[in-house]
Amino acid sequence: MATAQPGSIIQLVGRDQKYIIVRLQPGDELHTHRGVLTHDALIGQELGSEVVTHLGHPFLLLEPSTDDLIREIKRVSQIMYPKDIGFILMKLSVRPGITIVEAGTGSGALTTVLAQAVGPTGHVISYEVRADHQNLAKKNIARVGLSEQVTFKLRDIAEGFDETDVDALFLDVQNPWDYTDQARRALKGGGFFGSLVPTTNQVSTLLVALQRSSFEFVEVCEVLIRYYKPVPERLRPTDRMIAHTGFLIFGRAVNRRVPGAPYEPPLELEEAVEEG
Amino acid sequence: MATAQPGSIIQLVGRDQKYIIVRLQPGDELHTHRGVLTHDALIGQELGSEVVTHLGHPFLLLEPSTDDLIREIKRVSQIMYPKDIGFILMKLSVRPGITIVEAGTGSGALTTVLAQAVGPTGHVISYEVRADHQNLAKKNIARVGLSEQVTFKLRDIAEGFDETDVDALFLDVQNPWDYTDQARRALKGGGFFGSLVPTTNQVSTLLVALQRSSFEFVEVCEVLIRYYKPVPERLRPTDRMIAHTGFLIFGRAVNRRVPGAPYEPPLELEEAVEEG
Amino acid sequence: MATAQPGSIIQLVGRDQKYIIVRLQPGDELHTHRGVLTHDALIGQELGSEVVTHLGHPFLLLEPSTDDLIREIKRVSQIMYPKDIGFILMKLSVRPGITIVEAGTGSGALTTVLAQAVGPTGHVISYEVRADHQNLAKKNIARVGLSEQVTFKLRDIAEGFDETDVDALFLDVQNPWDYTDQARRALKGGGFFGSLVPTTNQVSTLLVALQRSSFEFVEVCEVLIRYYKPVPERLRPTDRMIAHTGFLIFGRAVNRRVPGAPYEPPLELEEAVEEG
Amino acid sequence: MATAQPGSIIQLVGRDQKYIIVRLQPGDELHTHRGVLTHDALIGQELGSEVVTHLGHPFLLLEPSTDDLIREIKRVSQIMYPKDIGFILMKLSVRPGITIVEAGTGSGALTTVLAQAVGPTGHVISYEVRADHQNLAKKNIARVGLSEQVTFKLRDIAEGFDETDVDALFLDVQNPWDYTDQARRALKGGGFFGSLVPTTNQVSTLLVALQRSSFEFVEVCEVLIRYYKPVPERLRPTDRMIAHTGFLIFGRAVNRRVPGAPYEPPLELEEAVEEG
Repeated sequence: MATAQPGSIIQLVGRDQKYIIVRLQPGDELHTHRGVLTHDALIGQELGSEVVTHLGHPFLLLEPSTDDLIREIKRVSQIMYPKDIGFILMKLSVRPGITIVEAGTGSGALTTVLAQAVGPTGHVISYEVRADHQNLAKKNIARVGLSEQVTFKLRDIAEGFDETDVDALFLDVQNPWDYTDQARRALKGGGFFGSLVPTTNQVSTLLVALQRSSFEFVEVCEVLIRYYKPVPERLRPTDRMIAHTGFLIFGRAVNRRVPGAPYEPPLELEEAVEEG
Repeated sequence: MATAQPGSIIQLVGRDQKYIIVRLQPGDELHTHRGVLTHDALIGQELGSEVVTHLGHPFLLLEPSTDDLIREIKRVSQIMYPKDIGFILMKLSVRPGITIVEAGTGSGALTTVLAQAVGPTGHVISYEVRADHQNLAKKNIARVGLSEQVTFKLRDIAEGFDETDVDALFLDVQNPWDYTDQARRALKGGGFFGSLVPTTNQVSTLLVALQRSSFEFVEVCEVLIRYYKPVPERLRPTDRMIAHTGFLIFGRAVNRRVPGAPYEPPLELEEAVEEG
Repeated sequence: MATAQPGSIIQLVGRDQKYIIVRLQPGDELHTHRGVLTHDALIGQELGSEVVTHLGHPFLLLEPSTDDLIREIKRVSQIMYPKDIGFILMKLSVRPGITIVEAGTGSGALTTVLAQAVGPTGHVISYEVRADHQNLAKKNIARVGLSEQVTFKLRDIAEGFDETDVDALFLDVQNPWDYTDQARRALKGGGFFGSLVPTTNQVSTLLVALQRSSFEFVEVCEVLIRYYKPVPERLRPTDRMIAHTGFLIFGRAVNRRVPGAPYEPPLELEEAVEEG
Repeated sequence: MATAQPGSIIQLVGRDQKYIIVRLQPGDELHTHRGVLTHDALIGQELGSEVVTHLGHPFLLLEPSTDDLIREIKRVSQIMYPKDIGFILMKLSVRPGITIVEAGTGSGALTTVLAQAVGPTGHVISYEVRADHQNLAKKNIARVGLSEQVTFKLRDIAEGFDETDVDALFLDVQNPWDYTDQARRALKGGGFFGSLVPTTNQVSTLLVALQRSSFEFVEVCEVLIRYYKPVPERLRPTDRMIAHTGFLIFGRAVNRRVPGAPYEPPLELEEAVEEG
């Protein structure tokens, strides 16, 4: 039987579907909008079961999903969405044991998922220029118990990254095109590059910079999630959807024998699929 | 300097963008459509650089991305797409150290990514009824060096799963609605359930079964990727896109105090976003 | 020089982009949230120019687009969207001179566009069971000067339509599957059938009914409009979009020599495009 | 009973779903891939019924939909798609009796629908610089009996349009931004402008030109159609879809009292919908 333990990150969901995410620490109290729960009373309870506040209101005791974790992050800026982060994991080959650099840290949403995915044998180095953002991200990461996996640096990346031979690097900054040379120097041969920008003009500018910095296998895409109302006898898409968060741009750092070799564009999607 | 090592999974990409994925083993030879490369000559070469075949044709020496790995899998059936798998990782909270069950194994595409994501401290148990599918999947997993992380079982899941208290469970079978009770018994309290079905009728049938088996937080969605031609001065979406692979259904195994409590539908997307 | 005339339908747009649509009638007054305009002062003014209220606030004097007309319709129920109506015009071959039947009338949004499109030489017959809806629609149609083109009938279409040999027929009712035989009897040979339903379950039910009533060339689709923020140097899709209004279903009334001939599904989209 | 008449545009659809569109002329013969049909034998036949060739193969006798007409147009260049044309009809308020200018003519797909929609009381003036394109378009228009509604001009529109005070104008040329002043001079006050361009860079360039030429109410959008396989018990979207044809840009010619007044962007979609 899986139970809540001291140090567990748990999620309490009220009947009104509102939820709270907290790390259990003996002696602490949790004040909800429907009454108080002591951490001690939660520790040892079965996950997936209901607990009640001192006012008798039931809450489901759950582990948060990665998606829940991100949505609940305290933020100072637009955070990255789970739909985008999930695809980034696939394209940057994020997995246990790798070293990945990101800039900027922002509120730490991507940092959280990267830290979780690389595990205790991997590492995330996260650059940020604003101290207030970094402080918030540090708190967000500490709260979910992932501080060991992350090194935070307060630095303008125009000066370059300290690291070399990193497996992957992600730029979530306003002007990623100014740092493609720095990114390339940090990446190992064949290393994975990714970035997210909101406008088409920025995509074009970044594409020029990536070509200039000899990145190849460049891809541009958007991830769209279409939700449905989960009613079996009246199944239909939701009325509104999030139509745009940003464009994702991916590329790889390569060293051709003849650097000036003409750029060969990647395959069209459909050909690529036929290949694969 | 990152170099190709014995045992490394590497990807060789020709000037025509065609690629081969192989595991380096001293003494082996690789026969491409543009000439031969010995594994010994590849071992020690810098990743991201070009190597040449005995006929003088250059190939880029890279590590494959997770996306590349999946696309190149030898298949007997429709495989799951990276776009769907990336989002599944987020919704099922797949991370180093967890135990996850899947059925069926198919060609092992999802198995590959799950095995990679749970790492050496986690485990994947994969059920399949067809021996030929399982054999192919075993080869695919072995080729990328992930066999240690996976236990394959040749079994009809109507009999139930051997495991209990698993963190997450994914059903990629034709009739997932027949196995929601079995899934629930295998999952720990609050455990993550996921499934993929291609038709709207199947979604409706599965939703009824999930409700009957007391799953909650049920969500239905589709993941769409829109690719762009990466040409800075003529940026535009590709003419065609993959419009449908399947509907993703997620839920969580919960134990309410009053099992017959009226079903409360999950929040609408937008409210959920406001919350998060 | 194009000027506003007595009887013209005009649109006045304030600096705050709020707009009013009205039919000009000598002697009338228009009370806006920014002051009064007399119709007499508007008559004779150049279209596309600014007029000012008695309080000095400028309003642009325009003809409304069809899109504007529909959005501004007084409504009692969900109206059809311009995106869907535009495609319906193409699929039902709506053009000057044809006769088209619709049910139900609702608030008259589709009625308005059909009446406009068939012109003085065509005709729209619009059925509705609720008197209050019909009364509102009559007012909406009268306001835009299209009453001559429309015959309104207050009737349950279960009894059938009075008309035969009509060119096209559209069902915007909750249970269109109950009326496919009636629709078929009203349509001329080869006549165009269309319907809109919000859920996938309804699509399936309607498809069965259409097959039973010997409709062929059946197509199901959704129309999606993705808007962009029209800022040249920061071009990007809007953050949110209308993700679903309904599924459009089209078909044609045919009389095969051998009625029981096996149903041959229409071509896949892509083949159809290759053909076209 | 609706029957095929001399001069009717009819569509013959074989059991293999291949179709032919032809105008019936007494004395003519139609050679299909499945045998011959004389026009005389077709005249007087009921629409929606089956006719047989001299080899005994059945063909359905139908009127083509507007969608069918466009798909079957003989083309020298990319034609506009029904999905885009349908929405253009709504946004440019195309209706019986109006005068509309388009450039360039291309293969005449848009011309066909505009000519049909404006009817005998309206008119389309279509400019083209290439004689071969114009000749093909003339044939395409003649074949569907719409020549009376169209005036073709062989001319570089850099010189300007001959017309003034036209209701609407559509630019389907490679460099629409070079002709926004000419477009404005041709349009009546408040007249509707539309254009289609394939790339985001072109959208940005056109937006700048439209602002410079004092167009307002500028909107940018894409129309996407998602088709479903029309199988009631296995309803699902088609696997692939047309993901991009072009971006649609709309605007209106206005004359502010103070021409240099600061540009006020149009409402966000959602606000606009709330208004409407």
